[in-house]
Amino acid sequence: MTTNRIQALADGIFAIAATLLVLELPIPSDSTDLLKDLAHDWPSYAAYVVSFMTIAIVWVNHHSLMDCVARADRGLLELVLLLLLFVAIVPWPTALLAEYLREGTQGSTAAVVYGLVLGAMATTFTATWWYLKRHPQLLEPGTEERVPTALRRSLVGPLVYLAGALIALISPILAFVVFALIAVFFAVSGRRGRPVAT
Amino acid sequence: MTTNRIQALADGIFAIAATLLVLELPIPSDSTDLLKDLAHDWPSYAAYVVSFMTIAIVWVNHHSLMDCVARADRGLLELVLLLLLFVAIVPWPTALLAEYLREGTQGSTAAVVYGLVLGAMATTFTATWWYLKRHPQLLEPGTEERVPTALRRSLVGPLVYLAGALIALISPILAFVVFALIAVFFAVSGRRGRPVAT
Amino acid sequence: MTTNRIQALADGIFAIAATLLVLELPIPSDSTDLLKDLAHDWPSYAAYVVSFMTIAIVWVNHHSLMDCVARADRGLLELVLLLLLFVAIVPWPTALLAEYLREGTQGSTAAVVYGLVLGAMATTFTATWWYLKRHPQLLEPGTEERVPTALRRSLVGPLVYLAGALIALISPILAFVVFALIAVFFAVSGRRGRPVAT
Amino acid sequence: MTTNRIQALADGIFAIAATLLVLELPIPSDSTDLLKDLAHDWPSYAAYVVSFMTIAIVWVNHHSLMDCVARADRGLLELVLLLLLFVAIVPWPTALLAEYLREGTQGSTAAVVYGLVLGAMATTFTATWWYLKRHPQLLEPGTEERVPTALRRSLVGPLVYLAGALIALISPILAFVVFALIAVFFAVSGRRGRPVAT
Repeated sequence: MTTNRIQALADGIFAIAATLLVLELPIPSDSTDLLKDLAHDWPSYAAYVVSFMTIAIVWVNHHSLMDCVARADRGLLELVLLLLLFVAIVPWPTALLAEYLREGTQGSTAAVVYGLVLGAMATTFTATWWYLKRHPQLLEPGTEERVPTALRRSLVGPLVYLAGALIALISPILAFVVFALIAVFFAVSGRRGRPVAT
Repeated sequence: MTTNRIQALADGIFAIAATLLVLELPIPSDSTDLLKDLAHDWPSYAAYVVSFMTIAIVWVNHHSLMDCVARADRGLLELVLLLLLFVAIVPWPTALLAEYLREGTQGSTAAVVYGLVLGAMATTFTATWWYLKRHPQLLEPGTEERVPTALRRSLVGPLVYLAGALIALISPILAFVVFALIAVFFAVSGRRGRPVAT
Repeated sequence: MTTNRIQALADGIFAIAATLLVLELPIPSDSTDLLKDLAHDWPSYAAYVVSFMTIAIVWVNHHSLMDCVARADRGLLELVLLLLLFVAIVPWPTALLAEYLREGTQGSTAAVVYGLVLGAMATTFTATWWYLKRHPQLLEPGTEERVPTALRRSLVGPLVYLAGALIALISPILAFVVFALIAVFFAVSGRRGRPVAT
Repeated sequence: MTTNRIQALADGIFAIAATLLVLELPIPSDSTDLLKDLAHDWPSYAAYVVSFMTIAIVWVNHHSLMDCVARADRGLLELVLLLLLFVAIVPWPTALLAEYLREGTQGSTAAVVYGLVLGAMATTFTATWWYLKRHPQLLEPGTEERVPTALRRSLVGPLVYLAGALIALISPILAFVVFALIAVFFAVSGRRGRPVAT
């Protein structure tokens, strides 16, 4: 097996998870005021956008990570597969959050679940960078100095998802804003003005 | 990351979005006159064909665009991911339009939503060509002269989807015909008699 | 674009259509005799196996065809995309047939629809070989002599699906046996004892 | 066709089957105690994790197998497609098991079905190694000595799934633990300390 094969499976799971999000968008049935019924489903559209962006960003970051990897051992492969397990599950907390975002106690529970599942995904990502730091023999020559920075930057994910899950206990909407801001943070914090792909 | 990786994710999302359309085709339950019940669902089949054709054409055009790209910067990557966000959502307005195409006011709302979502997709496509025109350093040598023509041709999309959304206010069926004609226009307006792939 | 890209999209759509078939397998709800309820759903399992085999065989044959193609023009690309439109729709007639296979008149309608949709897929396949015969400049050097044989062999598909649709008017179960036999015919009629992939 | 193409289809089906598992995770509707309702669905989460792990492991083992294959004949191709048929169906017994895991007689039936379907998948895998042993001309030079070990190790799958199906007659929960342990066995029994991908 080559690391290319791992990336092919990963690309497939990222693409499918992102596209399956659409199946959670509700179609009002027998609506007599479609505009109003669609407007009522705004949490579904907002959750779609945030989860799609999040999956896209994890995909970008996953490629940054794999670009540093020259070879994979069993431990690294298992961490990647665990990350994919959490990526593939994202449509579920997304649908849960969309369904219950407006409602008091249930909204809090749904937003806590969203924060914990995506926090577990982010933690796996951090763990993978940490694993690479501990096993430098797996790295592409010349990429060792990128690892500590990437590891530190990746810590933002688990911390902010945990904060979001705590905020969800007070206000699910506020927690949702935090989850959206994480995606925006990672989208804008990348280095600009340089090619990202050649 | 290479631009090949972006194309692999894009190919995946195009293929999945096109194939997920089938999940919106209704199976009549407990039908006692299946032929009549199937005939009654004609808007679903028509919407399937139009949305599948549209996704296929955007896929072809997306490859024409990526063939001009030698390297991607953060801005280009974000535009491509935004395009994929809209491609992945296509099954939702398709199902909405199929559900409400026949009905008066609700049909208008559904067709306006279809026009706006696909118009947003087409606008992102135009924006990507415009971005490439402004950042010629990202282009493959020798492809610069293709960009202005492609940018102009791509403007047809946003304009006609907007027109379709306006027409939908009067007649959802007529708007649907416009959406079908956009697909046909792009399918036949490509240069013929030349290889499109080698 | 390269013909490799067309094959990547095609591989994606074949894989997704084949895998989406599973979503049509019913899960009995609140069953008090699960064994009996599962046994009652036998047409779903039979239809799953036949449609999965059929998609797999069309995938194999599609690769045999693409192996003869050195370059694609617009016409060939459109035929391939039309084939993919029919491949992607297969889960729908499969679910319809599974739902109504046992019932008299409705079973006939469902089996006719299955035969017509898969017949349209097979006809597109035949049309693609015919197109290649008419445009030999698209062929890999040395593959011209394979085309007439492949074109003739591919004619079995449209003819037998049409026959199956006619038989369905008398007996949906008998038509289903014909659809299963087409898959078996193509599976065993390939040349044996030679590598199919290297 | 090249063996790469077979792996591309296989990678696609593995990725899609693993990701479709998420669609079987229930979203409680109109819940007034979401935490309790989510906790009540624990068999769904457990079944998701076990089936995702199982598909991931079969994917890893499938690549180990394909790494030994220099060329494919018709028989090998058919065995691979049969394996993919069973991989693609995994979300169905997973949902069935999750739905009925807690309940007495129906839970036993559901767990037997799970064991038999995954046992059929494992048996196809074993049959493929056995086929390669019988057709050494298909092997990459220098990989012949790996085959007997791999064949023997792959026998664990069919045997333990069969045992699990028998245990399910007494206790569905105990059978589920066995199914989880198979995944863990294959995950940890691979050789450690060596690169698995380069």
